[in-house]
This record gives sequence, structure tokens and C-alpha cells, in this order.
Amino acid sequence: MSAAAPRDPTRIEADYLIETAYDPAAAAEVMAGEQSSGTFVAVPGETPELKARSAARVETLEVVGEVATPSLPGAGRPADRIVRARTTLSWPLDNLGPSLPNLIATVAGNLFELKQFSGLRITDIRLPTAFADAYPGPGFGVAGTRRLAGVADRPLIGTIIKPSVGLDAAGTADLTRTLVEAGIDFIKDDELQADGPTCPFVDRAKAVMAVINDHAERTGKKVMYAFNLTGELDPMRRRHDLVAELGGTCIMASLNSVGVVGMVELARHTQLPIHAHRNGWGYLSRDPSLGWSYVAWQKIWRLAGADHMHVNGLRNKFCEPDDSVIASARTCLTPMFAGHPMTVMPVFSSGQSAGQIVDTYAALGSADLIYAAGGGIMGHPDGTAAGVASLKQGWEAALAGQSLPDYAATRPELARALEAYSA
Amino acid sequence: MSAAAPRDPTRIEADYLIETAYDPAAAAEVMAGEQSSGTFVAVPGETPELKARSAARVETLEVVGEVATPSLPGAGRPADRIVRARTTLSWPLDNLGPSLPNLIATVAGNLFELKQFSGLRITDIRLPTAFADAYPGPGFGVAGTRRLAGVADRPLIGTIIKPSVGLDAAGTADLTRTLVEAGIDFIKDDELQADGPTCPFVDRAKAVMAVINDHAERTGKKVMYAFNLTGELDPMRRRHDLVAELGGTCIMASLNSVGVVGMVELARHTQLPIHAHRNGWGYLSRDPSLGWSYVAWQKIWRLAGADHMHVNGLRNKFCEPDDSVIASARTCLTPMFAGHPMTVMPVFSSGQSAGQIVDTYAALGSADLIYAAGGGIMGHPDGTAAGVASLKQGWEAALAGQSLPDYAATRPELARALEAYSA
Repeated sequence: MSAAAPRDPTRIEADYLIETAYDPAAAAEVMAGEQSSGTFVAVPGETPELKARSAARVETLEVVGEVATPSLPGAGRPADRIVRARTTLSWPLDNLGPSLPNLIATVAGNLFELKQFSGLRITDIRLPTAFADAYPGPGFGVAGTRRLAGVADRPLIGTIIKPSVGLDAAGTADLTRTLVEAGIDFIKDDELQADGPTCPFVDRAKAVMAVINDHAERTGKKVMYAFNLTGELDPMRRRHDLVAELGGTCIMASLNSVGVVGMVELARHTQLPIHAHRNGWGYLSRDPSLGWSYVAWQKIWRLAGADHMHVNGLRNKFCEPDDSVIASARTCLTPMFAGHPMTVMPVFSSGQSAGQIVDTYAALGSADLIYAAGGGIMGHPDGTAAGVASLKQGWEAALAGQSLPDYAATRPELARALEAYSA
Repeated sequence: MSAAAPRDPTRIEADYLIETAYDPAAAAEVMAGEQSSGTFVAVPGETPELKARSAARVETLEVVGEVATPSLPGAGRPADRIVRARTTLSWPLDNLGPSLPNLIATVAGNLFELKQFSGLRITDIRLPTAFADAYPGPGFGVAGTRRLAGVADRPLIGTIIKPSVGLDAAGTADLTRTLVEAGIDFIKDDELQADGPTCPFVDRAKAVMAVINDHAERTGKKVMYAFNLTGELDPMRRRHDLVAELGGTCIMASLNSVGVVGMVELARHTQLPIHAHRNGWGYLSRDPSLGWSYVAWQKIWRLAGADHMHVNGLRNKFCEPDDSVIASARTCLTPMFAGHPMTVMPVFSSGQSAGQIVDTYAALGSADLIYAAGGGIMGHPDGTAAGVASLKQGWEAALAGQSLPDYAATRPELARALEAYSA
């Protein structure tokens, strides 16, 4: 997998899936006009020179199908014939410069409200290398995360503190002790747990790191814990500094809560990998005719500095199909720019147990990931340590090219997991 | 219109429109569990004490209709009977504290991906007053904007620089001169124009403010210009400082580009009103079964510090229906907290001319708004000054309780506008 660059290195490109009852070529021109020098009516200032300098261009357009009824309401024409098409637009970088906030206003912005469309989804973006020079990108990525977690050649086996919210600092530390003693590599706070009065961040970080540091001193293994520091900027910086000072190795932030500006500031400040949580992703993507594909969206956050990106998991408990999950994980591991790959570690989670491991590896073709399970670890019939062991054994099987049942023949933890989670 | 408070002042409330093929009461309980102490499976730590402290509650549930086919794909059950329902959930404030980023993760977060739902939209939120104490809110709002613009008792008549992008600083200043001489109250940059090499922010601010200051010195009227400073945090602060130093009276930022953390930082820094642009709103709202209602969404940004909020306009050029536009504008003018109204000025725009004014006033019942027109001013057959005059006359008619045609009988600018824009 190699980096995809725009046709013209001085232009930004974006791909869309559109649905329209209008002539699709004319509708695509409306997109280009609305998002650059044109508007609903001709304006005197839009001279040929100005258009040459600043107009967006329709690079490609391909009709891919027809639909019987409009996918979204509000389109401005009765639906005699509604077509779906893929189109690529481009913009001069000089309209905005290499700025992520202004990129969002340009490639997304008002497009989704245009009357010409009963469907509009952004499916990819390709950027000039000026963006790679302007933004931090992941400071740790796959290699840095592996180094800090001490896991060289298999996925990090991870879990999430549950209940998601409600435990106090001592309760969180108690659960952490159970998990680190069970052999886990990675633990994360739930995205609902940040700095509420029930479990203040400072107390939680101190209590949890005492457990992790104690375990590391005794065993040499420092478990990576992603502390959710989501909040306002100065508190996020202070929380980061505390985690770093306590010897922690990861912080976590919710992307849709923090926003691009907050994320870039955090990335410029951090000395630790950023575990980027995508909660809210459903409102950006659940309607397949609207919003963002993960392939487009995650590029913004990789530039902004995410090191780990959530991608859901195979046969997950949410509504996302498996092919979408694998496409998301692949894109995280696909270089963004020649010389600046900015690859990040995909995080598999949601209803994961040993049962999905061989299929996950077969579909992704990489072990550069975090494989997180909750019930798949803590719900193991023989306990948490057996749960962790079953996941490690599952990945050993996958990496050795063996089937799970075969490998389980001599590994009781894996055998019991396959039995328990097949229901 | 008065502030709506949660039933229990120590809890956060959120309202949803849901669509489900499951028992709606059970589905609502899944929402509450997923977003607080529950999860897909029972976990040992979820004790009765912990639930009492931290569990979200289903406060109300009302089935409002049935649909024949699921609105969104991915729901986990075949659709024998799919109902729509309205439900209200509540959370203890102590789960998160008065934190907007964590509020978003709590009331929105993963909900939209749950398999129980083929539709889920957040329609309102009600917050404990601790949020009003923790956040800046609008620093200027309606009164501050009127004072700075010198417009006491009618809407601010506004316009947008067009072409949206492509003009250089001198070209922007030339158009500004035409507009200020035509009697305009308010001008804004397009959201596509921020700080690109074609029109650097510093050059544009200096050139535009020279025109505005010169006009103010000669006439006593300082036109409010909303400079789009959207970008990273330090550049936004520097751009703000430049505008303030040059005597400017407004800055503009794109909310979906900047994010909550960036917006709060900007609001804590600014000495000027913040014109908040909602571009990208379509991907959050265009599917009526998914995402955010404006009523819920705009509360976050008012707390974060917006002074002006875009609401589209009647008979607009986008796909939003009129009742939705008016609901959005009303909510901007409805107090959020007793003692902390945090009301903001709604911004009407998109295809506006004199023709919609009387209907707008009749529907909204207030003149506390910015009424922005592009073609409705610059496309007036007798020129820009006649365009501005026609809008002022239209609002005089509305405020005097007269019909547009009656009032136009002795006002040629209004008469020509009604004729020109009726086509």
C-alpha cells in the first residue's frame, strides 16, 4: 500500500459519492462553484483571471447507478431519474494554504446542504505535501507504541475499564491490578470517564500508575494505560504532564469532543502517544448517503497527531459491517505522503474475543494493531488471566498460519474461549 | 420564552427521537446503559451502589409513530414493526462535571452506532447551571453587537464578500468600499476565505479596516466586518489581536473546523464578538433520522462563546425547510439558564432579499437578528445602495406592521427589489 497523491501537487483533491436528480455533471459543477469562486448567481468579481487562480475543478465524474427514491429529503427537484455518481474535485492549495481547519470548510463545508443532492458523502482526500510539513502527524505511531509497550511482533492485547463510568480512583486501580497481573499489554479508560467528581483524573492517574509502576518494577513489563484526558486545553496539558511525570506511557482524547484545534495543540504538547477515540463517529457516517467515510476522515486526525485510531472490530456489537471495519483498519496502515507515512495503529474493539482473530489477520494482513476486548477477557469462564492468554494464543495461531481449533487442541484457555464465545 | 432546566438540577438531560424494531423501552434502557455504567454484558463491578451513583436514567418515553422500512441500515433485527419514539435520558452531573467536551461524549458518543436503532437523533439538551458558571458564554450577544454596530432597533443588514474566495486583499477592500458607501451595517468573509496565500489575513485585515475606518471617520458609522480567522490556536489569537488593534469589531470562526476546545480558547481570548459559522451543519443534520437538531447543537456553542449563529433563511437556496429555519432562530433567542440567558444573534442568509422580510418577522417575532443577503443586495437592478435601501425599507415595513407592497408604493428601491426577486 503506497501513498496516494493528488494529480497536481499544488492542488487538494477530494472524492465524493453523490446522488442527484439533476444532470450529474452540472451538479458536480455546482459543488465546485459553491466551494470556491462561484455562488448561486453570477457575481461581477468572478473574472476569468480569478477563476483561473481560484476555481475548484471537477476532475472526474462517473455514474455508478440509479436509485428509485431519494436517500435524503430536501432535494430541489422531483425525482424522475436519480443517479449515483462518483466525482473528484480539486482546489488550488493557494486558496487556503496547508490548514486543516480550513481544509474541512473547503472539502466538506456547505456541500451537504445543496439542493442538487439527495445524497453526498466524502469518500477520500488527497493532499499536497505542504500539509505534511505543516502538521505534527503521529509522534509515535506503530513503532513508538510497540517500543513503549514492549510488544514487538504481535498485536497489543488490550482492554477497557468497565463499568465505563462510576468506579472511583481506588476501584479503577483495583481493576487495573487484576488486569496487569493477568498479563494484559494495554488498558484504556472508557470515553465516558474523564475528570468527573466521582473519579477525578489526578486521583485516578496516581492510583493506577502506582499499580502499573509496581508491576513494572517486579516484572519488567510496563503496561500501557491510555488515560482519557479529554477536556479544555489547559486541563488537558496539565493532565498530560501528570501522566508523563508518573511514568505513564499513553494519553487518550475523544476527537469529536476536542476538535481539530484542540487535537493539534495536544499533539504539539505531548511526550506520549495519543490514543484517539472516535465516539460520535455514528452521527458522521451511519447514513451511507451522507457524511464522511473513515478513509477521508482519519487522514485529518493522523495529520493532527493521533497515534491510535479506533476502527471497531469484526462481527462487532455495533451496526458496522465487517468490510467497512477492515477498510478503516487498512487505511490507518496506508502511508499518507511519500516520505511521511504517518501510519497509525488501528484499534479493534467492540464484542471482540479470540474467535475473530484469525479472520481479522487474514483480512488485514498485518499484526500492527491493538486488539481490545472487554467481555472477551473479563468474561472468560476461567477468569481474566485465561481471557488474556486466549487472545495471545489466538494471535499466535494466526501468525503461525494455523486454525484456531487446531491451535486450541493443546491450549485450554483458547479452547475454552472458542467454546464460551461461540454462542 | 424562558430557560428550560433539567427536572433535577444535579442531572444532565437529553431528548432523542429514536426508531427501533425492538421494544422501545428496552432500547432506551440500552442507550442509558451504554452511555453510563452498563455495557453489552453484565460486569461484576456494576454494583447497586455504583448504579445509584452513576447510572443514566430513562426519564420519559413516548411512542410517536410507526414506519414501514428502517431509515438507516445496520439495525440488528429484521423489521416486523418499527416504531418511532421520543425519549429523555438523564445523567448525574458528577459522572463528568460541567465539561462540554465530555458532555458531547456522554449525550452523543457511541449512541448512533447501536444496533437497536435504525434512527437516532438528539433533539435537545438541558444542563445544570454549573455549565453556565464554567463557560464564558457569548461575551457580546445581541446588546453588545448592536452597540458595536450602532444599530439600535432593527436587524443589522449584512452581506458576504463574493466571490467567496479568489479576491486578493485589495480586491476585498475595493468591494468593502462599495458596500460601506451603500449603507451596509455588517460584512463577513466567506468561510472559504481565511488566510490562504492568495489573500493573506494580515493584508486583508489592514486593507479592509483602512476602508472601514476612513468611512467611520467621515460618517460616524463603523461598519462591522467579521474577519474569518479560522485556523490553529496561536494564529487565531494573533489574527484577533490584529483586528482589535486595527479597530475592527468582529471576528468569525467555523465551528466544525475549530471544535469546542478551540472555540472556548478563542472566546476566553477575544475582545470582540464571535461570528460563528456552521458550515458542515449538513453532515450533522441532513438525515432527519440521524445526528443533531440545531436546538441541541447550538447550546454547546453558545456556552463555548459564540455571539452570532447562522440559521439559514426563509425560502433559502439550500434544502432546509422554513419551519426548521425559524425553530433554529427562535432557539438562539431563548434563554439557556435562569440568570444566564446566553442568547445570541441569529444570522439569516442564503438567497435572502427584501421579499422574505415580513414573513421572517411574522414567524420570529423579533428584530434581534442579522439579515444577510448577497444577490439580494449586489444583484439589485439599481445597484448596491438600492439593494441595501430595499432591505432597510423592508424591515421598516415589517416593524411598522405594513405589507411590503403597500410600503413599497412610495419607496422605489423596495418596489424594484420586490419586482426583481419575485421571479
